Amino acid sequence: MDVAVIGGTGEEGFGLTLRLARAGHHVVIGSRSAEKGGAAAAHANELLGGDANVEGTTNEEAAAVAGVVAVTVPFAGQADIYRVIKPAVPADAIVVDATSPLATAVGGKAWQVVHPWHGSAAEQADVILSQGVRMVAAFHTIAGHALRDLDRPLESDVLVCGDDAEAKAIVGSLIDDIPDLRWVDCGALSMARIAETMTALLVSVNRTYKVKDSGFRIVGRDAWGDART
Amino acid sequence: MDVAVIGGTGEEGFGLTLRLARAGHHVVIGSRSAEKGGAAAAHANELLGGDANVEGTTNEEAAAVAGVVAVTVPFAGQADIYRVIKPAVPADAIVVDATSPLATAVGGKAWQVVHPWHGSAAEQADVILSQGVRMVAAFHTIAGHALRDLDRPLESDVLVCGDDAEAKAIVGSLIDDIPDLRWVDCGALSMARIAETMTALLVSVNRTYKVKDSGFRIVGRDAWGDART
Repeated sequence: MDVAVIGGTGEEGFGLTLRLARAGHHVVIGSRSAEKGGAAAAHANELLGGDANVEGTTNEEAAAVAGVVAVTVPFAGQADIYRVIKPAVPADAIVVDATSPLATAVGGKAWQVVHPWHGSAAEQADVILSQGVRMVAAFHTIAGHALRDLDRPLESDVLVCGDDAEAKAIVGSLIDDIPDLRWVDCGALSMARIAETMTALLVSVNRTYKVKDSGFRIVGRDAWGDART
Repeated sequence: MDVAVIGGTGEEGFGLTLRLARAGHHVVIGSRSAEKGGAAAAHANELLGGDANVEGTTNEEAAAVAGVVAVTVPFAGQADIYRVIKPAVPADAIVVDATSPLATAVGGKAWQVVHPWHGSAAEQADVILSQGVRMVAAFHTIAGHALRDLDRPLESDVLVCGDDAEAKAIVGSLIDDIPDLRWVDCGALSMARIAETMTALLVSVNRTYKVKDSGFRIVGRDAWGDART
């Protein structure tokens, strides 16, 4: 599958790039500058070796080529970046927003959040794009640190929120392609109002216990994934 | 330890009563009516058999006798119940609030929340009591259904929030007394703003997958509990 990772030079985006490329997907890293995007892609291909197929370019160009556009940027820049990529995102694309509205966006603490006007960062993104893309919120509770370390088994589940069941299943199939990683359908896109804030709770747990990548594993059922199957 | 469970006739409170009494604690069920409290206690003793030591009375009387006062009531009645027990709660008591501000309180859905003025239901309770009790928020993500079924292993972790580390450790020791149950120190009482809403996310997951007691297990460290040890 062709996947763009907007903000793919950041830790979360770069980690996601590595995991998806290693699973055989064609990943295009987007960055504010084409040079930085290209350098990150070269670094990813070097780390992965062999058949890895990562390219790098600007955020706009990356968004234009992919059926799935993952956006992994800090909340402070999220709205601006969506406005930049808006003309480029294909009308039928699936957009995966991984933004958590941490209070760091306004000089606050990473274990605190601000409340976006639209309810969640993902709903804000959906309003900005406003062109019939299928918006999915995911990856808020997977530490970038853990994604980047390819030798590390991923224990935390991916909480997936969205109004389009088909889009969630497609994003879910990408997640299933990453060894050990599971996804849980958490309901409508508006449930991102809760899922996004859970990042801050993990930051608090990390801080209390001096760890780097706490996460959540959902219990109460043997298998998760697509609830329709 | 002497533990009062205010609202102990509800599913969550009754389940907590059973688990704590089975672990050897003296539990006093509080209810709006002494008769209902007494009947629930008799039922608990019957279910547990042997040496179980559960009593039942009014919420006020239950609060007065216990060093740890757990409050497990729906959000719609939470403020009123705190006003009722306020004169009775001993000044040095530890109060454990398990309230989630589900939108059902205002006729909404159980997978949606309302935002308490004080930030969280636990902070609202703390403001109402306003007398130097040590407030801890916990148990939001443990299904009452699972607590009540004594044969069921508890897989979900208890997220514990509070400003007093000693109080969190005492509540934690109660949690550790329940087989299989673990607790995770999630930071300050204000972190309940996030932990409380996670109940609604679990309701959404339950609904999507047609299960009854999904929960969260925290990953990223072998042991949790008191971070100071």
